[in-house]
Amino acid sequence: MSTVVQPVVRTLTQDQLNAYADASGDHNPIHIDPQFAATTPFGGTIAHGMLVLALIGEMMHAAYGDAWLVSGKLKVRFKAPTRPGDTVTASAEPLKEAGGVREYAVQCVNQHGEVLIEGRATVAA
Amino acid sequence: MSTVVQPVVRTLTQDQLNAYADASGDHNPIHIDPQFAATTPFGGTIAHGMLVLALIGEMMHAAYGDAWLVSGKLKVRFKAPTRPGDTVTASAEPLKEAGGVREYAVQCVNQHGEVLIEGRATVAA
Repeated sequence: MSTVVQPVVRTLTQDQLNAYADASGDHNPIHIDPQFAATTPFGGTIAHGMLVLALIGEMMHAAYGDAWLVSGKLKVRFKAPTRPGDTVTASAEPLKEAGGVREYAVQCVNQHGEVLIEGRATVAA
Repeated sequence: MSTVVQPVVRTLTQDQLNAYADASGDHNPIHIDPQFAATTPFGGTIAHGMLVLALIGEMMHAAYGDAWLVSGKLKVRFKAPTRPGDTVTASAEPLKEAGGVREYAVQCVNQHGEVLIEGRATVAA
């Protein structure tokens, strides 16, 4: 039987983007300078892609623990920007299990149902 | 001619892991509790995978700007854990360019030359 992978739901804030910029060292103004970001096609700040993708990592880690850390693979596409105030849900649907490797369709969607990130995650477990 | 993608080099610290845990909301003790982490097969804390992967995102973003944010794709495998004190170099080698899509082999290696993350990045530009 497949391990149940529980969704992770989180609302992102500008404070969190600022903290992430400091933690990751990526201070690109599109993420942290609302005045600058307003002049771009995005019209405002957007989250670092890896901050959103981190929800998928956290979800898989919670389900598989060390097995995810040592064998996890991700293949993802960034589909739409995530903005401060958006509530993001990361979820996984089991696809198949073969040779001890489990494959999931993973995605992050916002509160409007818009897909932000989609792809595949595999783990040996 | 291909856009030159400049490597990103950064030394990770436990403070940074702690900050990343707060920013991402992922407080798994393997990342932030040295006493607990010492009892695991890893023998100590390890960085969140997405914190290391963020160096690849930052590198591609620096080279391609908005084009990376709106069209970037990543396919990666986590090969080895990254520990506080490790100096990580993210780099990219151009592989091919077809139909307006550029593909790179990307990797993160530590100061011992050990591959931490490897995979492919594509961007429409």
